Amino acid sequence: MPVILDSRDAGFAEAFETLLNSKREASEEVGNAVAAILSEVKARGDAAVIEYTERFDKPAQASWALRVTDDEIADASARTSAEVISALTVAHERIRAHHEKQKPLDHVYQDHLGVTLGTIWTPVEAVGIYVPGGTAAYPSSVLMNAVPAKVAGASRIAMVVPMPGGEANDAVLAAAKIAGVTEIYRIGGAQAIGALAYGTATIAAVSKIVGPGNAYVAAAKRQVFGTVGIDMIAGPSEVLVIADSSANPAWVAADLLAQAEHGGGAQSLLITTDPRLADVVEDEVWRQIELLPRAEITRAGWEEFGAIITVASMAEAVELANRIASEHVELAIEDPQALLPKIRNAGAIFLGHHTPEAIGDYVGGSNHVLPTARSARYASGLGVLDFMKRTSVLGCDPASLAELAPAARTLAITEGLGAHERSIAIRLNR
Amino acid sequence: MPVILDSRDAGFAEAFETLLNSKREASEEVGNAVAAILSEVKARGDAAVIEYTERFDKPAQASWALRVTDDEIADASARTSAEVISALTVAHERIRAHHEKQKPLDHVYQDHLGVTLGTIWTPVEAVGIYVPGGTAAYPSSVLMNAVPAKVAGASRIAMVVPMPGGEANDAVLAAAKIAGVTEIYRIGGAQAIGALAYGTATIAAVSKIVGPGNAYVAAAKRQVFGTVGIDMIAGPSEVLVIADSSANPAWVAADLLAQAEHGGGAQSLLITTDPRLADVVEDEVWRQIELLPRAEITRAGWEEFGAIITVASMAEAVELANRIASEHVELAIEDPQALLPKIRNAGAIFLGHHTPEAIGDYVGGSNHVLPTARSARYASGLGVLDFMKRTSVLGCDPASLAELAPAARTLAITEGLGAHERSIAIRLNR
Repeated sequence: MPVILDSRDAGFAEAFETLLNSKREASEEVGNAVAAILSEVKARGDAAVIEYTERFDKPAQASWALRVTDDEIADASARTSAEVISALTVAHERIRAHHEKQKPLDHVYQDHLGVTLGTIWTPVEAVGIYVPGGTAAYPSSVLMNAVPAKVAGASRIAMVVPMPGGEANDAVLAAAKIAGVTEIYRIGGAQAIGALAYGTATIAAVSKIVGPGNAYVAAAKRQVFGTVGIDMIAGPSEVLVIADSSANPAWVAADLLAQAEHGGGAQSLLITTDPRLADVVEDEVWRQIELLPRAEITRAGWEEFGAIITVASMAEAVELANRIASEHVELAIEDPQALLPKIRNAGAIFLGHHTPEAIGDYVGGSNHVLPTARSARYASGLGVLDFMKRTSVLGCDPASLAELAPAARTLAITEGLGAHERSIAIRLNR
Repeated sequence: MPVILDSRDAGFAEAFETLLNSKREASEEVGNAVAAILSEVKARGDAAVIEYTERFDKPAQASWALRVTDDEIADASARTSAEVISALTVAHERIRAHHEKQKPLDHVYQDHLGVTLGTIWTPVEAVGIYVPGGTAAYPSSVLMNAVPAKVAGASRIAMVVPMPGGEANDAVLAAAKIAGVTEIYRIGGAQAIGALAYGTATIAAVSKIVGPGNAYVAAAKRQVFGTVGIDMIAGPSEVLVIADSSANPAWVAADLLAQAEHGGGAQSLLITTDPRLADVVEDEVWRQIELLPRAEITRAGWEEFGAIITVASMAEAVELANRIASEHVELAIEDPQALLPKIRNAGAIFLGHHTPEAIGDYVGGSNHVLPTARSARYASGLGVLDFMKRTSVLGCDPASLAELAPAARTLAITEGLGAHERSIAIRLNR
């Protein structure tokens, strides 16, 4: 059964702490298995990737190619319905337009001493995107991962997607085409991460790998971090709805259920200042579950991880929300703009009664790859900046070097770095 | 002996590839030992941290406290010479002023449909800084790690620094005070990373941990990633000097030696279009080594990891530089501004003959925590953005929701997420 709490009850602090630290994901110890796979891929390249793919994904044909051909991609797009292609095109255009606004500007200036200082942004040139296969293959996620890389200016976007039994997801391939993915390989698991990180004869190495995956993929990303860049390690999805008495309980219930239907540890939380709303939303959740295609998964998710918390004030709701640091925060309240500046830890914030989180999953334009498991305390959703890097620039002339030299020489000597000191001193006129 | 290459020689491509992939760091397999330490710290908090510290750092006193008191910090500052305090103050002010310019702006706007879209930046509230003890204790690194966190708006900056035998580095504590570090703990190693990540009775958990350390510290950061954010895994330092015939060979040699004196795998590379310069710099390096306080470490570093590469053109130099993706790139050439836009992979770029890299280490104002080991292909130096996170904002009104609904509903159904579709449909007027 979902957790029902009231902040005025005795024992609330402990109950909330328990909720906050509840583990929603089985941690599989796959580190050693993954290390072995990565080391084989590093040493033997394509041969190892092919062996693991045949063992784990069992391609239908005895003869199959690592790379998905342009013809295969075109065929998959042709098999995708016009309605879906149109929806993907709308989504792509909105995501692209919004991410264009995230492009950073170089900033190089001279300070009062005449020292040139600044930051120059450049794209990560080669990006790898991991796309899960099977039931969790989401064309929308292809757009969300590929578009920011494309907008950043990446010249290569290599996508890997496992095709168990040889089965491809047409809409996923169609989305990749729309997003401008440059290469697609039918591989997955740790072997795909290894191929992208180390490169093989067929698959050139990339510099950064993004995208969600199972425990093997997550462990592989953790292990190749340093050889390449990685994005966050994604956990189960979550929503926190903050509602006051202006909220529509049926809508709030629908949003809680939209999150719960992900299953796999997905969490739906409601915090409300209105105890009656809490009651009605709970009833609505049970009523609406029966109407859903994924009723069983959704019910299990709500029963195991759902929670409704009644609080005495909106200030209290904000305080709890900042501790929860949810991936998605819906402000189902009268005046969402007034509360917005107070939410300090959240992946994404959805304003008002007419912004269900699902709009952001697809066509809002903002990214749906967001920090989970309280990582919004320190991490951000995916964006253009994740596919760019900053280079700092420093330039002195003889006069400004002479100005800066004394302090720099003192610190170099303090740190026992005599050659550092000498590299400055040798340039000074005596 | 250092590697001497000419791009016009047969076998250059292979020799360069070998240089590019040369391993400069012994990889220690410490993952299991670190996992055990982290799990003890997580389970037993202070008690475990104290036990490991007594075992590894052997404090001089039987009775010692985890936290360094304000009096101890004030005493350390008082013992630091006025000249060093003044140099630290100059450095601090320049670093602070430059990092202030990195502060990002929120950007929230309405698109043509009336959808509110945007990005809001907030600081990481609690930051942990790891500072190595012993010979590698650099007060300048305290400034470089703490100042961006402070400028970002972190309310807590907790520093850990091991004090083997109870020995503190006065200038390190003085630098922490100048930088506005809020707490200092005399602990190090994996146990310090665990304490910062999980929290103990004495040390409140932080949200992000930055700073370099040994193999145990690096492994611990990798393992706690996800519980907290981390910065990059730092490797040995490196410089690439690109020089033409306008360069002063003695100055170039001094810069190569400043890098080599770090030891521990530090690498100094010179690429030049002028074969005579290559020869003279080589002679200068051998001559100047004799003058250095750390002559032995420096000689060993130059002999094992140094390289001089002569190329046919500046275009070729740029191509090699982009493949090397060095932490530091010095443009010791006639017209550095002209070459600047062509360098696509570098941690920091130093312009012209009067900007030795060592100036950037201390007082230039830019950060000296920079991506090593070719990670400038995907990573950036430390900056204010590393201590902030982006929250995306999305807001629809009834009209814009109705506009966006059809594409979103189509995609939700395509992905088999019926409750997602329903959370949108329930808000539409029929």
